[in-house]
Amino acid sequence: MKKLINRPEDVVKEALQGIAAAHGDLVRVSLEPQYIVRGDAPVTGKVGVLSGGGSGHEPMHGGFVGPGMLDAACPGAVFTSPTPDQILAATQAVNGGAGVLHIVKNYTGDVMNFDMAAELAGYEGIEVKAMVIDDDVAVKDSLYTAGRRGVGLTVLAEKMTGAAAEERRSLEEVAEVCRKVNGWGRSMGMALTSCTVPQAGKPTFDLPEDEMEIGIGIHGEPGRTRMKLKTSAEITAILANAVLDDLPFERGDEVLAFVNGMGGTPLIELYGVYHELAKILAGRGIKIARNLVGSYITSLEMAGCSITLLKLDEELIRLWDAPVKTPALRWGI
Amino acid sequence: MKKLINRPEDVVKEALQGIAAAHGDLVRVSLEPQYIVRGDAPVTGKVGVLSGGGSGHEPMHGGFVGPGMLDAACPGAVFTSPTPDQILAATQAVNGGAGVLHIVKNYTGDVMNFDMAAELAGYEGIEVKAMVIDDDVAVKDSLYTAGRRGVGLTVLAEKMTGAAAEERRSLEEVAEVCRKVNGWGRSMGMALTSCTVPQAGKPTFDLPEDEMEIGIGIHGEPGRTRMKLKTSAEITAILANAVLDDLPFERGDEVLAFVNGMGGTPLIELYGVYHELAKILAGRGIKIARNLVGSYITSLEMAGCSITLLKLDEELIRLWDAPVKTPALRWGI
Repeated sequence: MKKLINRPEDVVKEALQGIAAAHGDLVRVSLEPQYIVRGDAPVTGKVGVLSGGGSGHEPMHGGFVGPGMLDAACPGAVFTSPTPDQILAATQAVNGGAGVLHIVKNYTGDVMNFDMAAELAGYEGIEVKAMVIDDDVAVKDSLYTAGRRGVGLTVLAEKMTGAAAEERRSLEEVAEVCRKVNGWGRSMGMALTSCTVPQAGKPTFDLPEDEMEIGIGIHGEPGRTRMKLKTSAEITAILANAVLDDLPFERGDEVLAFVNGMGGTPLIELYGVYHELAKILAGRGIKIARNLVGSYITSLEMAGCSITLLKLDEELIRLWDAPVKTPALRWGI
Repeated sequence: MKKLINRPEDVVKEALQGIAAAHGDLVRVSLEPQYIVRGDAPVTGKVGVLSGGGSGHEPMHGGFVGPGMLDAACPGAVFTSPTPDQILAATQAVNGGAGVLHIVKNYTGDVMNFDMAAELAGYEGIEVKAMVIDDDVAVKDSLYTAGRRGVGLTVLAEKMTGAAAEERRSLEEVAEVCRKVNGWGRSMGMALTSCTVPQAGKPTFDLPEDEMEIGIGIHGEPGRTRMKLKTSAEITAILANAVLDDLPFERGDEVLAFVNGMGGTPLIELYGVYHELAKILAGRGIKIARNLVGSYITSLEMAGCSITLLKLDEELIRLWDAPVKTPALRWGI
């Protein structure tokens, strides 16, 4: 295992200490229990927007904490759900009196632990709503999931709900934005290589030198199928068509097109994939109104990519364009 | 070779087409010859700031084109210098009448081709100054270099000279900012794995599973030494101490600390390295006034990192903080 780490069990803690050192002007970091919170939290009268999940997907979620996006993020161990006490502590830290929205990727452990934390917060008089993201069209159920998995759309949901909360909309209204994003967005990913969880010390799965996995999950869990390597044009078509046909996206739709790297794929390849995607969408009469290209929801050093498409209307465009200032996404401030 | 590409010879062109499709609001892309230029270039009365070099280091340089940073970038083939005609065409495209600054990483081919382009531009009455970046303390001369190599400091030089040009300072003044940054900054990198140039089809070098290369170049060219894998604390100390002792940086200095990923190293590890670096600098009485953590000058999918330190004064802090709007670095706009 080749990694820039000290002891495998300290990877998450030391990354959090690094985030605290690098972004202390923007966020505060709690190490016991572990969470990252906006420096000015709680913001009185504003809905708190909180997410979390296993570590190893950086910059998601901790890199999205700041004005205009998340109020807090709870990192679990690598590829492991955060605990209810972590989520409760972060919920308390962002409670400005207007309620707290939990954005939860659809994995059984995450849903269960966020649910328990919401119940505990309720006992303390904090109103919590949880919205589950389940955008991955690859598989119906999976190793860690009942129903579809939550993947790339989570980044877009966090940005847009964060902007809605910044407008001082009510908890129900902010939740409604999240519901709309989840209803209008779909994703699918693929991997060229496995990744290695530090505490496991060996690759999560084996993938022969001439094969790839289509529909991979963000923890390396199995997808739809393995096949021989194909060109980026062919791979992009497989992913894009599965996503397009699922909603379905239709001629005349405006979308946000998000090409995401899994961690080990260079940007030069992601722009190549985006070029193919733009051609496919143009061919279907779908207009790309906004886009995002880069590694925002990763699987450690896995090589591969995912495609997320989100149908847009005026409201979602306004929420996407709204100012944001976080370690990983920033504009307008 | 596992890559998201079509034909190896089309990788750069297709990435440029992806950049054009994704960032058409910000930049224009010329495919023949290949360069990326600010959408509003040339800006009358402003010094044009231009850089370039081999592809495979994305987001550098093309991701840094936009207001507040580069006016244009010339991508060569992967790990290959851009040609004089490319550089000349881009120089013409950004010539707003106040002269053009060429920021050149110190590699023999780059220096020669930028030099030839400057001479050709001179024949057309365009005043060009070239500043060479040579911040890598690892080796004195190298496979592709007489003298030290230009590496991570280039990103900081492009940001700060771009900001100086935006202030409508003269060509001599903008060049002076670049000279100051190059004088006050130092870098060193290391690799855990090789990368694979698409047209070569096999790894640039072999590195045993239990070894790393200290002082690696950004094209995989040899560094100082190979050694057994160490912890991130030990690796960070090796890199940081070499950088600190070279300038030397001294107690009381304020610095910009830049932890850069080589492409295949996850952000969670880079923040761990930053944590170690912050401890080392605190121990030496050096204050981190600004920082940058992420993969900004890469070597395709190589795993590894580099550390760049730049001594700051009020002028450089102001130029770093100035608004910037590019695909890869953005704030304040």
